[in-house]
Amino acid sequence: MKHLLSIEDLSAAEIHALLELTDHMVEISNRPIPKVPALRGRNVVSLFFEDSTRTRTSFDTAAKRLSADTMNFAVSSSSVNKGESLRDTIETISAMGVDAFVVRHKSSGAPQLITQWTDASIVNAGDGWHQHPTQALLDCYTIRTGLDRRDGFDGLQIAIVGDVKHSRVARSDVQAFARLGARVTLVAPRTLLPPSLDGWPVEVCHRLDDVVADVDVLYMLRVQRERMDDGLLPSLAEYSTHFGLDERRAARLAPHALVMHPGPMNRGVEMVIDPAHLPGSRILQQVANGVAVRMAVLFTLLGQGAEHNLRGEAS
Amino acid sequence: MKHLLSIEDLSAAEIHALLELTDHMVEISNRPIPKVPALRGRNVVSLFFEDSTRTRTSFDTAAKRLSADTMNFAVSSSSVNKGESLRDTIETISAMGVDAFVVRHKSSGAPQLITQWTDASIVNAGDGWHQHPTQALLDCYTIRTGLDRRDGFDGLQIAIVGDVKHSRVARSDVQAFARLGARVTLVAPRTLLPPSLDGWPVEVCHRLDDVVADVDVLYMLRVQRERMDDGLLPSLAEYSTHFGLDERRAARLAPHALVMHPGPMNRGVEMVIDPAHLPGSRILQQVANGVAVRMAVLFTLLGQGAEHNLRGEAS
Amino acid sequence: MKHLLSIEDLSAAEIHALLELTDHMVEISNRPIPKVPALRGRNVVSLFFEDSTRTRTSFDTAAKRLSADTMNFAVSSSSVNKGESLRDTIETISAMGVDAFVVRHKSSGAPQLITQWTDASIVNAGDGWHQHPTQALLDCYTIRTGLDRRDGFDGLQIAIVGDVKHSRVARSDVQAFARLGARVTLVAPRTLLPPSLDGWPVEVCHRLDDVVADVDVLYMLRVQRERMDDGLLPSLAEYSTHFGLDERRAARLAPHALVMHPGPMNRGVEMVIDPAHLPGSRILQQVANGVAVRMAVLFTLLGQGAEHNLRGEAS
Repeated sequence: MKHLLSIEDLSAAEIHALLELTDHMVEISNRPIPKVPALRGRNVVSLFFEDSTRTRTSFDTAAKRLSADTMNFAVSSSSVNKGESLRDTIETISAMGVDAFVVRHKSSGAPQLITQWTDASIVNAGDGWHQHPTQALLDCYTIRTGLDRRDGFDGLQIAIVGDVKHSRVARSDVQAFARLGARVTLVAPRTLLPPSLDGWPVEVCHRLDDVVADVDVLYMLRVQRERMDDGLLPSLAEYSTHFGLDERRAARLAPHALVMHPGPMNRGVEMVIDPAHLPGSRILQQVANGVAVRMAVLFTLLGQGAEHNLRGEAS
Repeated sequence: MKHLLSIEDLSAAEIHALLELTDHMVEISNRPIPKVPALRGRNVVSLFFEDSTRTRTSFDTAAKRLSADTMNFAVSSSSVNKGESLRDTIETISAMGVDAFVVRHKSSGAPQLITQWTDASIVNAGDGWHQHPTQALLDCYTIRTGLDRRDGFDGLQIAIVGDVKHSRVARSDVQAFARLGARVTLVAPRTLLPPSLDGWPVEVCHRLDDVVADVDVLYMLRVQRERMDDGLLPSLAEYSTHFGLDERRAARLAPHALVMHPGPMNRGVEMVIDPAHLPGSRILQQVANGVAVRMAVLFTLLGQGAEHNLRGEAS
Repeated sequence: MKHLLSIEDLSAAEIHALLELTDHMVEISNRPIPKVPALRGRNVVSLFFEDSTRTRTSFDTAAKRLSADTMNFAVSSSSVNKGESLRDTIETISAMGVDAFVVRHKSSGAPQLITQWTDASIVNAGDGWHQHPTQALLDCYTIRTGLDRRDGFDGLQIAIVGDVKHSRVARSDVQAFARLGARVTLVAPRTLLPPSLDGWPVEVCHRLDDVVADVDVLYMLRVQRERMDDGLLPSLAEYSTHFGLDERRAARLAPHALVMHPGPMNRGVEMVIDPAHLPGSRILQQVANGVAVRMAVLFTLLGQGAEHNLRGEAS
């Protein structure tokens, strides 16, 4: 494995292998000194063309726990703004000695494009509406541990609720959940679904009330205010009435059901109930798992030959 | 000690203990390799809702000398700007594994509030007009070493000059100096004093000329241009005439008297004389002591059980 | 050597010594773990009053390979913006314990000025139109290895093409190339040459076509759009026609000739041909060499007594 660009590139066996390695990364993260020398001397550069402090911080923390050096290439103050091409930027930073780029970009396919211009590994940290594979992996890990499903998701019912159309999280999650065997239902108004779902391994439902009692996992997506300006939503209040998780709907969840959200939440819109009052909420667990999953991804891409260094302590 | 929120929470004995530990941190800072492994694997996150490169850099340097990992959570590009609540931000970053947050916020009490949402230690690095406890500790340390007062400040005369009303530094300093036994005089125009001084262990004077010859420590506060716009000052020039430290007043200082300032200075306003020409100036010493005091604070909050690592060298 | 301010301060022997040390730094950079403990505990602060992610990243990478601590003092959010003087800023950061400042500033001479206010070493990373000495050193290193000229540049023909007038790179390169023995020709329209070239060890030519077939090194400078607004250039297209490197001119280069550029390139202006199609292009090699040269500079300034640590591995 050289790059992580899309969940599509991963077989079920590869996903399982990453999740098993994540178990080990969780163990490292729980040590008094949560650090191993596995990627000492490796240089991980984050290259975020869209701001995301949360995702960048998660990758940074993951890289540091493996003793990699990290660098944040601040696009806003770089030559990109002097009209330098993306290709020249990548070739230039690469020439300084980079082992992996963690890339977020507003254009679908940008991380794939970048692989042509560098020998470094590329991790897609979100590209347009296309993919966000580490989010899908951390979501799988959260379900796997939360419902004790080490062998796969056969028979699990997962509902993904909200703005699927504009969501790279939804696209990655659908593929990953389905590949592990789950049955996925998209729950959204028609305006927030893609024009075609050909080839998507999903069912569709337009009423949250119809599915809420039957799911093992309720995955709530963030709804963005811009959708009203686009004319896709009459109002956030109306969205919330039909698709928000409120107390009434939460009471209908099965006792074992998990509630998940990729963050940041819109309280009062898709999350009406305070998740602190939801025993099934795994929202903060997702964040914690995100660091461990990203450790597993970085180690898989960069750690060949350093497996013994996962055992020892950082010096 | 779990948090450092306010000088009010510290007894004289606790302040003395921190200052004694600071002695050791100064010794470490003067080594050829000024680094110990005391906080290896600990993660210190600075969370500055108000810009302050100076204070952030001081905490960063302190954390690195103790071998902690440091992370700067850039509020301006974070989800805080997408409307995420402070609570969700804190809970999310916490979930990634944070041992201490160093928090600066424009609202008094924000660091206290944050303690509810995380298991991490909170260090208040300045909240509104309320408190700036590490500044007070470094000021105490500077007086303690500058006037050789290891046993306390009994009998010392300290004047704090300037915009006390809007100053968290003044509030923290008054409490700390008084707790160690000093007599504190506030010197300011009425418009720059709080409406009530009930419970403040201070005397008040409206003329700097009346006290300048009698003080052991002259502590000059920064006066901000905004105070003129607020109508609290007729002009900076007039302020400077009455409350600025010029050559004439400097000549009346006792030979042993210290001159201090929390920075950044307004040259030509409260500091008319160049402090480089003031033998009693400890302004740069305050900055140097700031790093050592913050090492002592971070170690006190996070270093339980790692005392032996204060002795050895960083590996 | 305490500071690196200008190529003028370096003798040919000193330049050669830095380039020889760079050989060793290249060897370190090519190791599986490209890191030595040579500057452990040293604190290198970058202080960029002009944005340059590329140069800052290069210095950062260099410092980290030597195990120095690095800090980026973000001028834009610092007290400099509250009206603090440059001197107070430098004195304050210095007091926290800084071993070297890497300074970029729009004013010629700013790094020299700063040496008065701190005991730290100063590395000039570009000041106005004046100097950019590490760029000149990396350019020398690139020529030295690219043309196998370990003993000097005697007899080499180097053309520097473009906006010499506003270029610190050109000023530093001319001095360095000449000091090592090369014959330097400036190729530019009259409006982009300095009003006087008294004392410059150069020849001048106003037609690129006259020299392109005869050079060992063709050094293309970046042309900035602002020059049109200044009235110094009629149009970028016209500049490109006369001074751009296109296929026709590239075909006239000697087979061994090197093509260099300090970056970022303006494709379609001074670089019309894609450098990926130029076998003589050393543009990315320059970037890679930049890290190694900066390692050599930082070690020369800060590494006295730590020579043995250049050999071992970072712990």
